[in-house]
Parts: sequence; C-alpha cells; structure tokens
Amino acid sequence: MSDLLKGRLKDQLKDRLKGRREEHLEARARDLDTADGLAGHREKFALDADTVYLDGNSLGALPAHVPARMADVITREWGELRIRSWDESGWWTAPERIGERIAPIVGAGPGQVVVGDSTSVNVFKALVAAARLAGDGRDEILVDASTFPTDGYIAESAARMTGHRIVPLDPAAMAEAAGPRTAAALVNHVDYRSGRLHDLPGITAALRAAGALAVWDLCHSAGALPVGLDAHGVDLAVGCTYKYLNGGPGSPAYLYVAERHQAAFDSPLPGWNSHADPFAMTPGYEAAAGAVRGRVGTPDILSMLALEAALDVWDGVAVEDVRAKSLALTDFFLECVRAYAPEGRVASVTPEAHGERGSQVALRCAEAPAVMAELIRRGVVGDLRRPDVLRFGFTPLYVGFADAERAARVLAEVLADVPAGAPAE
Amino acid sequence: MSDLLKGRLKDQLKDRLKGRREEHLEARARDLDTADGLAGHREKFALDADTVYLDGNSLGALPAHVPARMADVITREWGELRIRSWDESGWWTAPERIGERIAPIVGAGPGQVVVGDSTSVNVFKALVAAARLAGDGRDEILVDASTFPTDGYIAESAARMTGHRIVPLDPAAMAEAAGPRTAAALVNHVDYRSGRLHDLPGITAALRAAGALAVWDLCHSAGALPVGLDAHGVDLAVGCTYKYLNGGPGSPAYLYVAERHQAAFDSPLPGWNSHADPFAMTPGYEAAAGAVRGRVGTPDILSMLALEAALDVWDGVAVEDVRAKSLALTDFFLECVRAYAPEGRVASVTPEAHGERGSQVALRCAEAPAVMAELIRRGVVGDLRRPDVLRFGFTPLYVGFADAERAARVLAEVLADVPAGAPAE
Repeated sequence: MSDLLKGRLKDQLKDRLKGRREEHLEARARDLDTADGLAGHREKFALDADTVYLDGNSLGALPAHVPARMADVITREWGELRIRSWDESGWWTAPERIGERIAPIVGAGPGQVVVGDSTSVNVFKALVAAARLAGDGRDEILVDASTFPTDGYIAESAARMTGHRIVPLDPAAMAEAAGPRTAAALVNHVDYRSGRLHDLPGITAALRAAGALAVWDLCHSAGALPVGLDAHGVDLAVGCTYKYLNGGPGSPAYLYVAERHQAAFDSPLPGWNSHADPFAMTPGYEAAAGAVRGRVGTPDILSMLALEAALDVWDGVAVEDVRAKSLALTDFFLECVRAYAPEGRVASVTPEAHGERGSQVALRCAEAPAVMAELIRRGVVGDLRRPDVLRFGFTPLYVGFADAERAARVLAEVLADVPAGAPAE
Repeated sequence: MSDLLKGRLKDQLKDRLKGRREEHLEARARDLDTADGLAGHREKFALDADTVYLDGNSLGALPAHVPARMADVITREWGELRIRSWDESGWWTAPERIGERIAPIVGAGPGQVVVGDSTSVNVFKALVAAARLAGDGRDEILVDASTFPTDGYIAESAARMTGHRIVPLDPAAMAEAAGPRTAAALVNHVDYRSGRLHDLPGITAALRAAGALAVWDLCHSAGALPVGLDAHGVDLAVGCTYKYLNGGPGSPAYLYVAERHQAAFDSPLPGWNSHADPFAMTPGYEAAAGAVRGRVGTPDILSMLALEAALDVWDGVAVEDVRAKSLALTDFFLECVRAYAPEGRVASVTPEAHGERGSQVALRCAEAPAVMAELIRRGVVGDLRRPDVLRFGFTPLYVGFADAERAARVLAEVLADVPAGAPAE
C-alpha cells in the first residue's frame, strides 16, 4: 500500500471511530435524559433550544413564571396599593419569609436564615459577629486562600476593624491550623474557580473543637448539593441567590445564624430593620430576637420578590436528587471531553472524586479567552476565569445530558478551529 | 327670638360660612392647578382619581412607563441574554451610570455619586470613611439627635468600630459645637418627623472651618428641593431613592463622595465591585478610582434598573421649580387645615418659615392613629409617626393643589367624626 493510501485509510478510520464515539455518546445522553427524574423541571425555565446554558453557576436562568409575578408586584402592589403593600402585600416580612424558603435547601431549621443585602455585606456581618462571639484572646481569622476575592477583601476589613489578623490558608490545612488563637474561619464550600468541594463537616468540627467559629460561604453550593448547616453544626453562613437559586441578577443574599448564637449575635450593621420595634423609632438600639437581627435597612423589594417567586421551582424537589444528577452530569461531561477534545489542549482542574466536586467543571486551557468567546458564539455559554480557566456550570434543574454532550462536542470543534497558542482576545 | 331659633340660625350661618370657605378654597385650588407649570407631569405616574397620595415621601408613586421597561429587563435581558447582559445590557456599570442621573438632582458634578446598597449601609460607609479622613486626634462624631433612627444606630456602630464617640446634638447647635475633637457630623437635611429643613450650607461651612467632615442624609430632601452638594462644599452624602425619586420599594440608595476625598476614601466594605480590576480576581485589594470606590458587592439589578427608568420623569424638570411648587403646596395645605379643621385638634410641627421647611407637613394630633386609619379609608393616604404625628408628604411632580384642599377637607371631616380622646387603634 502506498503511504498516501495508508494515510487516507487511517483518516477514514479515525473519522469513523469519531463518528461512532459521537453516536455512542449521543445515544447514552438520550438514555440518561430519558431516565432523568428531574428532566421535567426544565420546562419551568425560559430556555431556548439553540443555547446550552452552562453559566447557571454565575446567573441562573429565568423561571418562566417570574415575569407575570413581577408584573403584578410592580403594577398592583407598587402601582396601586403603594405604601399599603408594606403591610398588605407582606413586603415588610419578606426577608425572613424568604429565608424560610431557602432554609431547607441548605439544611437549616426554621428561624435561622434571613435574606437581604449582597454577599459581601453579609460576609462582613458574619465575620465581625463571629469575631465578637469568639471573645477576647482569639486574634486570628483564617481565610480560605483561594477564596472568591470579595470574601478576602471584606475579611481583611472586618479583621482590621475588630483588631484581628487574617491568616490565609488552604482549606485542607484549616483543621490542623485551628487553635487557641483562632477566632473564626471563613471558607468557601465550593471553590468558584476549580469547582472543588471543601470538607464542610470536617473543617467545622475541627474549628468547633478548637473553640473557633465556622463561617461558610455557600454561593457555589447552595441549590447544587446538600449543605446540612444544622446537621454539621455550622455557626454562620452566607450565600448568594442568583446562581443555583435563580433569583435574578444581583438578587439579595442570605445570612444564616445558628440558633445558639442568635442571642449574642452582635451585628456591625444594626440598621432599623433589625430593631426589636422598628416603628417605635426610638433613638436607642435594641436588637430583635432571631435571625431578623441580621437585617439592616429597607429591603430591596423588587429583587426580593423575584427571588421569592423563583424559589417556587424548588417545590417538591429534593436537593439529594439534584446532587445525584449534578454528579452524573459532570461525570458525563468529563467523559465526553476526554472522548472528543484534541489531545493536550484542555485539562480538568475539577477533582475527579465525587466527595471533592461541586457542580461545575473547570478546564485549564492556554487559549481560554479565545475559546470561550467562540463557544459562546456557537451557543455554548460557559464563562472565563482569567487567565486560563474555562468554567462550565451544571444546574440540574434545567441542564440535561444531551446539553453536556453537545457542549463537549462543540468545545472539541472550537479547539480544532482555534489553534494552540492563539492569543487572548 | 327663642334660643332654639337663635341656635338654628347660628348653625345655618356657620354652614353657609363653611360652604363659602370651601367654595373659595376649591376655586383657589383650581386656579393654582391651572397656573401650575409642573401639572403636566402628573400623567407620567400611575395614579387614580379616588386617592390623594400624600405618602410619596415614604414610597414614591409608580412612573407609568416602568412596568414595560421592567418586563423587558426580566424577559429579554435576564431571560434571553442571561449572563451576557452584565456586559451587553450595561448591568455592570449601572451603579455609576445611575449615579450620574441622580447627581444633577442633588447638585453634584459628574463622577461623585454611585448607587447601591441600602441607606443604612451607605451611612456606615460614609461615616467610617469620614472618621478615617478626619485623621487621628479627632474622636467625636456629632449626630443629629432627632435623626431617623437607623442613622443613629449605624453611627453608633461606626463610632464603636473606629474608636470614636457619638455626641447627639440638635443640628442647630452643631456649628457652635464643632471643634478640634470633631471628626465628622451626620445630619439629616430634612427631619423625617417634623419636616424641618436643616441649614446645610451653614452647618457644612462651620464643620469645614473646624476641620471636620459634613456627612448629609438626603433621604427627605433629594428630589424635593435643591441640595447643592458641590456648591456648599459637602464632604459625603447618602440618600434613598424610593421617596421623591420614585425608584420603587427598597430601591438602592446612593453615596456621594466629593471629588477631593475620593483618593483617600477608605471604605469599610471594600467588596470586589470596588476593585480597580474586579475580573482579575486577585487576592490583594486595590481600590478603584472615583466614586466607584463606594461600590461593594453585585448590584441588585432589577431594583436598580427600575430606579433608572423611574428617573426618566426628571427629564427637563428643574429642581428649583419643584421647590417652588412644594412650598406653594405646603403653604396652601396649611391654610386649608387652618380654615377647615376643628379648633385645637391638630397643630403643625412643621416650620412656617420657607427656609426651614422640607416638602411635608406634620400635624400633631392626640388621636393620630385613629385619624390616619380613617383618612386612609377615605382615600387620603398619609402616614403615622407614633405616637401622635400625622405626616403628609407633598411630591410636586404628581400632587396638585386640589389634592391639598381635598386632603384638608377630609381631615376636618374625620376629626369631626373621631372624637377627641379616641383611643389609639
């Protein structure tokens, strides 16, 4: 056989193998989608067939019933009832009422979760309160060294204002590092970049054993996997609501204060909404009982009620089922990437072990900026974490296995079209 | 003449006089409304003929075009573009863009106003930053003793966390009290209860002369009267947007940082949105230049964009014209109350002098709770400030003189029906 002929046959064989691999994975995806007990939830969201939306870990998709609810909030509650809605439409109590809707999703019993402000502001409340709860003589706050930046910046400010110092640490080293000088630790449950799931039960237990408080940031875990705040004895926690909870852009964050800490919870932001009798409008501050103590100023009603409506999609959903599908989705996506992607172009930085994986896959790729831009142009929406990480979030309520397969296939096509060494956009 | 006949004649005369007085004031109201250059703005709002809405100083009425804009924000920007909207729909830059819309209303040049968080949170930012800007050796923060409570509570926390002490004072005494120990003063431009307008130019000048910073709370003045932040050399200011700016329930507040202070503005809430390069996501904090430094976490987009749309009603409106109408309205309302209300049942606690009056009238009334409840039932919506203040806010863009006359007339009827000494509800 001539070399030319040999080459042609080899190419044909490769194409056929590739075709078979694709057929095989597409068939697998169809079977997995058919067997998926959560598949029916997808129709609750405004999605289009042209797009594979893998950025729900940044901004959750719109639940389809939210626009009608918000039209009513704006036109009738604000427009017609106006001021009366603070009472008659339940605006005033929305922060604690919506907190109760989030509570079961993060494994919290009633009366411990309150909604309002941004995650950053809640990190400040939680960390200052934790430093105060820990008491004198404990002058160190441990902070997840790979934390989402805002937690680190805010922790630095909280430490400065309470006379503590920050010790940045790998979460894996925290259990051992916690000691008599440790006031508290601030840890991300899931790392925003790598998707690594940190050991919430183990780190929390070690901190408590050392007499320190555990403050968890649940932004990248709540709504994607069981958190078990009460079960694991977490002290304080914060989280955003616009990722897996689909609350809408910049929807308010939440604060969890374990019941045992509420009476001594001493907020650095004691606004009038946390007063025991806000409408007495007395000059002296007297903190309300319960999680309400975590409120500050007038709550952001439009965003808050969009979140409340969005939480309806969780009715009848068990977070354990969400977790099972999430792991199956990320497993399958990784399998498809391995099968399709050109050798050596991407490497997963997300742990293989289920116990260490959140609900996203992060792929290191030297040409990440150009690749992600092209992926988005071709309808596969993930996001970029500079300089070289492609992030794909899997939101089990509306992402299916066929989406995962298509995303991996399009990624391989894009990698074939974007030459290695392509400059960043 | 028999006593019976005398009594009847007296009553008839009284009724006739009352009737003439009412006819006269109703006619005056019609003339004033006809001559009102701002009357045309009323149709920009969702209002009904049955209600006189005098609580716009608590929650502004809905601008009629906002529901359509928000339907687009929710359905298209969130629902269809999703994550792309942070860039393509201008979500990311909304806080500073909307700040520029508010700036002219409060007399601020460009680049000094940023929107986000609640008023309480902004008071904390402003006061901590002011204490730091004032430098060492100044350990006192003066606070308006009649302040809206949240300002006082938050000031107490800011003082505690920065090693200052709070000195509560009548604003009228601040100019004289400011001295070498004064770091800053926090003052309400208009008192939320009495409607008294405090002397912003004079107090600011005295504070500056003493080397201290002036932090103004504009919640009850912005949008009702000229503020002149730049002209009067104010250092820092905060304000809400849901009263005279009609941003919707709990819409985000704003922070003004005078340009000369921006480089040294040291926020206690240095969230990632205030970083010089937020998407570099570096562990070290580096503050952005300009008012953006006042940002904290992810902005509350739904509420923020409702506010942005609501600000359209200010296009082509001069705040000086708003002020002129506001004074004419409150003058006329007071005149009608004097003419109609039964002797001795209500007493205005709002100053007569124009230079000391905001855009509301506060009437002390022993039966205030019962009277306000009944007023609201009869379509005149003001609000109650416990224990004994009836508050009527006048929002010149949508309240007219006939509204003021009707409100006073209904108030008199209610006072006639609610006996003196009626218990609180």
